[in-house]
Amino acid sequence: MNNIQPQCPLCQESGGLLVAQSAQWRVVRVLDDSNFPAFYRLIWASHVAEFSDLSQDERVDCMAAVAAVERALMEALAPTKINLASLGNMVPHLHWHLIARFDWDSHFPNPIWGQAKREVAGGAAARLALPLAELDQRVLAALAGLA
Amino acid sequence: MNNIQPQCPLCQESGGLLVAQSAQWRVVRVLDDSNFPAFYRLIWASHVAEFSDLSQDERVDCMAAVAAVERALMEALAPTKINLASLGNMVPHLHWHLIARFDWDSHFPNPIWGQAKREVAGGAAARLALPLAELDQRVLAALAGLA
Repeated sequence: MNNIQPQCPLCQESGGLLVAQSAQWRVVRVLDDSNFPAFYRLIWASHVAEFSDLSQDERVDCMAAVAAVERALMEALAPTKINLASLGNMVPHLHWHLIARFDWDSHFPNPIWGQAKREVAGGAAARLALPLAELDQRVLAALAGLA
Repeated sequence: MNNIQPQCPLCQESGGLLVAQSAQWRVVRVLDDSNFPAFYRLIWASHVAEFSDLSQDERVDCMAAVAAVERALMEALAPTKINLASLGNMVPHLHWHLIARFDWDSHFPNPIWGQAKREVAGGAAARLALPLAELDQRVLAALAGLA
């Protein structure tokens, strides 16, 4: 049985566009930052704060899913780099940020939480190798074997 | 045999104070940001850029070590949150940042790469529950079973 917290936004809401879901986690595409359109989150279903709160088996399953999303982003977009982060300072419910970064993006090489370096004419989404709906399908396909 | 790149700083230098080392990875304490004294890095020995460049077995070993360091920091310091990140935009050699965060620290709840929120009178290290040399020993002990 999952631990559910009534006050936790990631217990109560999807946290983005739902792309894939298993009993243990869901993967959403983050919609609130147009500078980083290829930005997904893997959100653990049960309310735990820290990665090391998971059992060994859960950690393996969690990171297998993270790696599958990463690989799908690499193959679909050929980004300069993938950024992974589990922070949770604002919402201490385990979630992994997965962000495809490009040497032309608004903040590169800074972290997305750092200072912007440039504006991207025409918007970042238009520069991706495929539309976001297709990217979501690639991510879903990469996770299908795991869920 | 590890892949070594002559131009890569994490192939050529330790990247911090060496705390623990296995055939696959090393853990260093990051010395260059006094706002975040309880800041460790797990650096993969072989030069690979992305987490998903590792094999499944290597990913499991890598994250077992990350979780062990995290658990040591939790038990020693009782931080508000642990932050984990694998970015590598500047140095694309796989390394995990592990940072103990406190609600009183200079940037909390912002990421360490974001805007500062306050100054910490007396410095952050003085507010930790134990000296950094002892913390290093706790981290080393936590990793001893894995290396």
